[in-house]
Amino acid sequence: MRRHLHLLYSFLCFSVAAALWPKPQSLHQSVGFVRLADSFDLAFTADKGQQAAARDLEPAISRARRHLAADGLQRLTVDRGESQRDAVEAASVLCRLDLRLNSTEPYTTLASQLGRPYEHMDESYTLEVPDSGNSDDPLPLAAKLSANTSLGLVRGLDTFAQLVYALPQLGAASESTRYIPHVPLRIVDRPAFPHRAFMLDTSRNFYPVSDILRTLDTMASVKLNVFHWHIVDSQSWPLDLPTFPDLAQLGSYSRDEVYRLEAVKQVVDHAASLGIAVLLEIDMPGHTAAVAAAYPNFVACLDARPWSTYAAEPPAGQLRLGDPDILAFSQRVLADAAKMSSSSLMSTGGDEVNERCYLDDPYTAAAMAARNATLDELLADFVSGLHSSVRANGKTPVVWEEAVLNHDLALGKDAVVTVWINSSNVRAVADKGYRIVHAASDFFYLDCGAGAWLGNMPNGTSWCDPFKSWQKSYSFDPYLDLDVEQRHLVLGGEALVWSEQASPENLDSISWPRAAAAAEVFWTGGAVAPGERSIGEALARLHDWRYRAVCRGVRATALQPHWCALRPGSCDLE
Amino acid sequence: MRRHLHLLYSFLCFSVAAALWPKPQSLHQSVGFVRLADSFDLAFTADKGQQAAARDLEPAISRARRHLAADGLQRLTVDRGESQRDAVEAASVLCRLDLRLNSTEPYTTLASQLGRPYEHMDESYTLEVPDSGNSDDPLPLAAKLSANTSLGLVRGLDTFAQLVYALPQLGAASESTRYIPHVPLRIVDRPAFPHRAFMLDTSRNFYPVSDILRTLDTMASVKLNVFHWHIVDSQSWPLDLPTFPDLAQLGSYSRDEVYRLEAVKQVVDHAASLGIAVLLEIDMPGHTAAVAAAYPNFVACLDARPWSTYAAEPPAGQLRLGDPDILAFSQRVLADAAKMSSSSLMSTGGDEVNERCYLDDPYTAAAMAARNATLDELLADFVSGLHSSVRANGKTPVVWEEAVLNHDLALGKDAVVTVWINSSNVRAVADKGYRIVHAASDFFYLDCGAGAWLGNMPNGTSWCDPFKSWQKSYSFDPYLDLDVEQRHLVLGGEALVWSEQASPENLDSISWPRAAAAAEVFWTGGAVAPGERSIGEALARLHDWRYRAVCRGVRATALQPHWCALRPGSCDLE
Repeated sequence: MRRHLHLLYSFLCFSVAAALWPKPQSLHQSVGFVRLADSFDLAFTADKGQQAAARDLEPAISRARRHLAADGLQRLTVDRGESQRDAVEAASVLCRLDLRLNSTEPYTTLASQLGRPYEHMDESYTLEVPDSGNSDDPLPLAAKLSANTSLGLVRGLDTFAQLVYALPQLGAASESTRYIPHVPLRIVDRPAFPHRAFMLDTSRNFYPVSDILRTLDTMASVKLNVFHWHIVDSQSWPLDLPTFPDLAQLGSYSRDEVYRLEAVKQVVDHAASLGIAVLLEIDMPGHTAAVAAAYPNFVACLDARPWSTYAAEPPAGQLRLGDPDILAFSQRVLADAAKMSSSSLMSTGGDEVNERCYLDDPYTAAAMAARNATLDELLADFVSGLHSSVRANGKTPVVWEEAVLNHDLALGKDAVVTVWINSSNVRAVADKGYRIVHAASDFFYLDCGAGAWLGNMPNGTSWCDPFKSWQKSYSFDPYLDLDVEQRHLVLGGEALVWSEQASPENLDSISWPRAAAAAEVFWTGGAVAPGERSIGEALARLHDWRYRAVCRGVRATALQPHWCALRPGSCDLE
Repeated sequence: MRRHLHLLYSFLCFSVAAALWPKPQSLHQSVGFVRLADSFDLAFTADKGQQAAARDLEPAISRARRHLAADGLQRLTVDRGESQRDAVEAASVLCRLDLRLNSTEPYTTLASQLGRPYEHMDESYTLEVPDSGNSDDPLPLAAKLSANTSLGLVRGLDTFAQLVYALPQLGAASESTRYIPHVPLRIVDRPAFPHRAFMLDTSRNFYPVSDILRTLDTMASVKLNVFHWHIVDSQSWPLDLPTFPDLAQLGSYSRDEVYRLEAVKQVVDHAASLGIAVLLEIDMPGHTAAVAAAYPNFVACLDARPWSTYAAEPPAGQLRLGDPDILAFSQRVLADAAKMSSSSLMSTGGDEVNERCYLDDPYTAAAMAARNATLDELLADFVSGLHSSVRANGKTPVVWEEAVLNHDLALGKDAVVTVWINSSNVRAVADKGYRIVHAASDFFYLDCGAGAWLGNMPNGTSWCDPFKSWQKSYSFDPYLDLDVEQRHLVLGGEALVWSEQASPENLDSISWPRAAAAAEVFWTGGAVAPGERSIGEALARLHDWRYRAVCRGVRATALQPHWCALRPGSCDLE
């Protein structure tokens, strides 16, 4: 009897639910099926004045068409949906997905929407899939996707593609019937947090643009909306800037390992079509040794040994403080970069500033003496100058947590602080009144747990051991340690890949499906009380997402033996 | 001064050495260069009666040609070899690599050599690359590779391909000059241990043959010589057996996830051409729940809950003991599998046999009562029967350590015991006088450290945490805890990928470059005293190997930032 109860429970919990990732805020579903017509298509019905929207949405619609044509995912059950064949074959035929924009205002492009402050960003959408037509209505059966913005329609398209499964046709295994279970269904959805990012470090190892484009596609499929591009660091400067071409020319790994203007534009444009903003980070004044290849006089303690005295990682080197020329250079770098990026945010970094590097640097030391200033006062001036440039270029500055926790810099109240060292630091940032992005290494650093990368530590482990499992990321509470009245400070969070031990070769498998856990936490987060998220319920949906990602050419790592994926709950510890 | 000494040291230690992996037993090298002629080719000079050898070596020679044409690896230095351009361009031109077999005996094919007992396997070779011709000698300059066996020539070809670098031609970046530094050089090489394996579990998740073929190619490039194929397990039975077609038909994940006779033959033949033996494992009597799909009556405690009482992993299910029909079936399964495989060894598994499963099983319990036998006595009969079948089919049986450590089975003295649970168990196996293969989870399990895969352990870690870094594997002492007179028992070792959290998507990046560490330990092992292996010296060579593997389409994970790879020693902790 116990076993039967268990099976019944499995059935109720897992088999009936649509396997959507992230979970929509509101989902009403049933037990019916519709088949997609061979001629099924998606169509944006442009009202008067919406031709611009139609053009802007074309890439997203084409992408959804490709997914519907190519995904070919069968149900993740032991029989792969075979027992539902009769019901599927007898089901009504769905001919269209109609997209509608509920707005009479002049159209704002996706790119422009992504550049708005978060409080003006609207990603909500409503999706309805009927199970049969109205008998009085001679029109072919259509699903409906509506939203206030094209951004909302893009999100809804990604949801719709996740609803569709394939059933191989009998006697023609290469052909499949596409169908949607759980109809009629109605989804009313919007994100809990406006900032849901994936961060990639492209300095320590370089990634060709094709890897970034594929990563953006995968991000969109879990409704991540910000590509936080940690594009330069001490190891290499791959960003080609119009004003300072020598930075990339001399500071990149090679002339083939450079992001030129047109490449960045390709990334930004592709991201926009997916509803993703590109947030560039120029990490300063630390993490800038690569600047020295072109501007050796701008960098303190360059290559100083032992490096561990002067930097968190080799090579040592930081932009000198207290020098107006170096500040002006840094501001122009930010201005160049700001023009390339699409997010309303821009990061000036600010992590791991090494004190010894500056104290041993005659130029910075002289500046301190001349102004009778402390190091933090010089740093405050420098960061304040950087942020002026960011704001002058229409962006809001973002910094890593040390700026306000270690150096107690008084940033403008618009500034956004990213907590990375430990989630226990969130409260201190909130107490200072800053807006917060969660990026805590103890939950969201996807590169942890791969052993030491330094060359002489045979038994070394990574500094942020252990490996962050998807379950760990998924268990995160976005309101951790915060008072209710501080919750409005949380903008969202990110999953991060630092590239000391990552490269194009393992980008997909280190990132996916784990980054999807953060995507769901920050899409659904506000509505879910801590501890209410169920790993067991989530696992079945995450399998579904992962197998679909594999269908799309993403090398997302298996979560479990395939045997477990087909039998939700059977591989729980009991 | 300290800094200069450091640089000098780096230069001496790293820059002069040929970057070979694994390190040859004997290497004499110098500071010269030779360029490869555009028409450079490899040629096996067949003496009378060696036509069969020429045919057998053709795939290996073609593969070496492909590598020479396509690798395109530049030196891993900051200038990528540019400072050596003049020397390279002025160097003598190498026209050929001549392969010679030092044997007048009738030719034995690679496949047959791989099926020999290890004491009769000869992988030694000698490779000489001159820097200039003899002025009296009008012949074009040729390198020489000679060996007693074609297996030795295959090993030498892989070494030769690692010697060659590319230098882009000025004004024609798509064209490269291929050259060999460190000439004249002479390598005399042979492995320390005859068993150097890579193990892959293809039951928990399935791998298409193409993934296995690519893995074999990569294995060959580090001179691993045994593909330990853990082909079936409780989760699925992908092996199609002539005598029992229903095992795969009903026990595989799908009809597309089956290794049919011709697929196994393709793997075995490709492996043979690379000098790799295929060692099949049919893990019995545990890990056999998948047999029940076709033969439900053969399996005790099938799907019993809670599974953790009855098995190490879901689903529970073990072949029943004490039943002559089940033994006969198991023997025929082994006989079928033996005919497919090429190694002189064959594994019958024997790990994680669950006592409770049998004690609760009425059939096994009845057999115990009828014979007045203990469970270990029934197990001894069963394993003895399995090993008779293995021996009758010309193979030597291999078991996991529990057979002799937990159940104290008296195996024939020919049996090989694989130590997996912990390296501290090696001594106990040696004390029983069995030959040993090292596969200890604390050094060689490449799947450790990726979090819990069970569905309900949010903070769970893998049972064999932490992640096994390449440094950890590399620090292994093959003679750990053994007396000098026990050393002859060590056959070698393996790197292992269990597939609970592995799949085609991360196969390359979870396996490489880490499995290369085991490859070098067991190639060089006997000659290197414990603690004498230098992580620092090895790292530069392992980078070289990894970048070359990436050139060959292997998604091998980066070991460090590219900045470090170009500056040996600079990313050591100091």
